[in-house]
Amino acid sequence: MTQFSETELTEAVIRSFDDTPNARAKFLLQELVKSLHDYVSKTGLTFEEWDYAIDFLTRTGQKCTHTRQEFILLSDVLGVSMLVDAINHRKPDGATESTVLGPFYAEGAPDLPHGSDIAHGGPGEPTEVSGRVLTPEGKPIKGAVLDVWQTAANALYSTQDPKQDRFNMRGRFRTDDKGAFHFRTVKPVSYPVPTDGPVGKVLNAMGRHPMRPAHIHFIVSAPGFEPVATHLFVNGDPYLDSDVVFAVKNSLVVDFKPKPGAKTLAISYDFGLKPAA
Amino acid sequence: MTQFSETELTEAVIRSFDDTPNARAKFLLQELVKSLHDYVSKTGLTFEEWDYAIDFLTRTGQKCTHTRQEFILLSDVLGVSMLVDAINHRKPDGATESTVLGPFYAEGAPDLPHGSDIAHGGPGEPTEVSGRVLTPEGKPIKGAVLDVWQTAANALYSTQDPKQDRFNMRGRFRTDDKGAFHFRTVKPVSYPVPTDGPVGKVLNAMGRHPMRPAHIHFIVSAPGFEPVATHLFVNGDPYLDSDVVFAVKNSLVVDFKPKPGAKTLAISYDFGLKPAA
Repeated sequence: MTQFSETELTEAVIRSFDDTPNARAKFLLQELVKSLHDYVSKTGLTFEEWDYAIDFLTRTGQKCTHTRQEFILLSDVLGVSMLVDAINHRKPDGATESTVLGPFYAEGAPDLPHGSDIAHGGPGEPTEVSGRVLTPEGKPIKGAVLDVWQTAANALYSTQDPKQDRFNMRGRFRTDDKGAFHFRTVKPVSYPVPTDGPVGKVLNAMGRHPMRPAHIHFIVSAPGFEPVATHLFVNGDPYLDSDVVFAVKNSLVVDFKPKPGAKTLAISYDFGLKPAA
Repeated sequence: MTQFSETELTEAVIRSFDDTPNARAKFLLQELVKSLHDYVSKTGLTFEEWDYAIDFLTRTGQKCTHTRQEFILLSDVLGVSMLVDAINHRKPDGATESTVLGPFYAEGAPDLPHGSDIAHGGPGEPTEVSGRVLTPEGKPIKGAVLDVWQTAANALYSTQDPKQDRFNMRGRFRTDDKGAFHFRTVKPVSYPVPTDGPVGKVLNAMGRHPMRPAHIHFIVSAPGFEPVATHLFVNGDPYLDSDVVFAVKNSLVVDFKPKPGAKTLAISYDFGLKPAA
């Protein structure tokens, strides 16, 4: 018969994965067992706390829909997403830094001509966005695609807001011969991550605010280059120092300045892509 | 502006919980951040692996219903449930050892008189179960409740099997003046944990069998005593040494012996309850 002491139990669970055919999966599972068991032992986790964790994970899974990913939100607010990003996306000089994808990306945004307004004249401070996509050596990349999305003036993404068109505040732009792009939008606003789910309730109970500093999302890609998922943040935003998902990088903070001789704001940013491995 | 290196990121996430009002919750969250970040760093988790984990957790949550708890199953097959049990249920001599509750308990099983057959004459080897509920000093406890459940001969619990009555193979018995109980059932059979969900798929990919050794579940409780959730296992079962949820304890393995002069099997077991703290 097999009866285990607490340490023997952990060893037995690790051994149970000894026959895993895939070496990487075996390593990941055995390290997971060590981490989970260490955590339970170190904290002296009670049955009631375990029961809460089971219920929390269940509610988190059941909150997910095709437009809502509560587990990504959990990963984001625990800084796990940014750590995975940091480990996997070490960039050379001249390549744009990445940050979290976030749970609000929607595939299938329309291809739009340069100069299009992704806000469709909706409320907010009109802003012109321009720039180029470059190699690390500063050479223009023609035909690079910028997949862009952001919140509307009401601080909601279109996927959160039945009153917005599905692809409001979203669009795809393609760089010209000089690697340049140009579109119009409104200045993004700071907003709370969703607080009506299990993750928001925990943030609240822990005394953490749910706010993200204002930003525009970009996925920039081009054939032969590594795509980058990133944001441009609004300089001066009060939440730059306490982003609930820890995603701010200095190189991604830009000044939204009045455009000379016009009633709009303007930003300019050159993205750098590193060649694919 | 706040930009973090990989180590600074972990420290920043830990600090974000500094204002948690509840000291225990703060400790649990901060240790969780350390464990998760250590795991990601130690394994060099790739974006694709993180993405798989998000999807796995989502599918696990969405597999849960009021009769199916896939996260408890996950906790069970990773040995976490038994570790939580071991840490929280250190028992004095004379008290019955606990083991996993499992995901198949159903509240509201009928109160039945002594001698009732929870198998209702269904298929299987008829077995008589008797014994007493005692204090650690061996004094009988009158009015203790035994909440009993097990699989039917087809290796399914009633909550898994639409062809069984809701409370088939389930019942509640109350000890008499001598602390004694007595009921009839069929000998339990070894069975696989559910393999049609995310957890079963991982077990299969990892080369682990999904089997549990045959057992009858009990929750034994009485006013003034700490309740115990436990099993009685069938001696000789081929899976006693490799229970997929690591739940076997030597003191819970019993001999199912032919009853002299009858065509049934019989087991006898005295449960011990420790006084409530």
